[in-house]
Amino acid sequence: MRKVFQADLQQIGEELIEMANQVATAMDRAWESLANVDVDLAQEVIAADAKIDFLQNQLDERAIDTLALQGPVASDLRMIVGSLRMSASLERMGDLARHLAQLTRLRFPNPAIPAKISDTFAQMAKIDIDIAKAVARLLDTRDLKIATEIIELNHELDRLHSSVFTQVAAEDWDANAPTTVDVSLTSRYLERFGDHGVSVARKVTYLVTGEWDPTEI
Amino acid sequence: MRKVFQADLQQIGEELIEMANQVATAMDRAWESLANVDVDLAQEVIAADAKIDFLQNQLDERAIDTLALQGPVASDLRMIVGSLRMSASLERMGDLARHLAQLTRLRFPNPAIPAKISDTFAQMAKIDIDIAKAVARLLDTRDLKIATEIIELNHELDRLHSSVFTQVAAEDWDANAPTTVDVSLTSRYLERFGDHGVSVARKVTYLVTGEWDPTEI
Repeated sequence: MRKVFQADLQQIGEELIEMANQVATAMDRAWESLANVDVDLAQEVIAADAKIDFLQNQLDERAIDTLALQGPVASDLRMIVGSLRMSASLERMGDLARHLAQLTRLRFPNPAIPAKISDTFAQMAKIDIDIAKAVARLLDTRDLKIATEIIELNHELDRLHSSVFTQVAAEDWDANAPTTVDVSLTSRYLERFGDHGVSVARKVTYLVTGEWDPTEI
Repeated sequence: MRKVFQADLQQIGEELIEMANQVATAMDRAWESLANVDVDLAQEVIAADAKIDFLQNQLDERAIDTLALQGPVASDLRMIVGSLRMSASLERMGDLARHLAQLTRLRFPNPAIPAKISDTFAQMAKIDIDIAKAVARLLDTRDLKIATEIIELNHELDRLHSSVFTQVAAEDWDANAPTTVDVSLTSRYLERFGDHGVSVARKVTYLVTGEWDPTEI
């Protein structure tokens, strides 16, 4: 029984890593679709999101079966409940990448993002991809230095997110209102993606140390 | 043992209803703070959100303890895991109400929302409050007619959300860019609030019927 249980935990852990890797790819391609106004790539990102949702369902069913069949307690129980929450965060990161791809498609053949703000978003997207990759490494190694890196990357993301609103408020901002809406929502999606990465990082930290950080967002 | 377990389930159910009611109040007051540019009320909403977060933690700890001590299986297990997810959705609804109150505070003493779009947002906020109250009733009665009502309310919310972007794209939209940003994010928060309500409604439906609706958002 114990051996089966360890195999279940291992499998759940591997599925979380797989989700984090797929989410990193989704953001990479979603940003590329926006930056290059590539509607075919956007379609691929939108289609691939269903696979991330499928992975989440598979993982959640496995976690619930493990709860039912093995009746885990203490740290094993927290690990499985934590996995359900982490899979929800990762699934949401996939949704946010999909939202960017949907924006590419909505505005095609026009670019959704004005050139003057594109560099800020490129930096934000790069940080998002780095966060998702770091989440995969953290899940794999449980090295808490990586959790700290993720939190620091997210601070930089928040700084860039604020700078978007400074740029929009500047006198030389000449985009029309619908484009300003697209810019606001894009910045929000890119920023929320990082928050969910931090949420996973804090849960892994809790599972490793047993201490909950009350600054959890 | 069985009696203790039923008491635990009952308590978890009551805490979910309490969260839904608090979230309805939060949205009611958050909207009032925005509409009336009432920064004191906004502060109260922001402070009250900590209580919703506390309720979630309390509920989640109770659910995890119940999993550990009672080792539930089948529908009881699904109910407890479902509660963890529903509490996460409700907590997020509280966050979204808080975001509106934070916007009131950020722009004070100026109104964040231009008068010409205020009526649309008032309708959206009213639907959000109705959704949260309906979620409380659904959790209490498990009457699935209420779940259908929630989904219909959310369709109306989506329609109003789309109409915001039509209004922003119209020729007579004369708000400056930062206000357009505030309008986009307000609309997004009001719309997401409803999505989370639907998510709870679908989970209750699943727990009652055992059938998962693949259109889950």
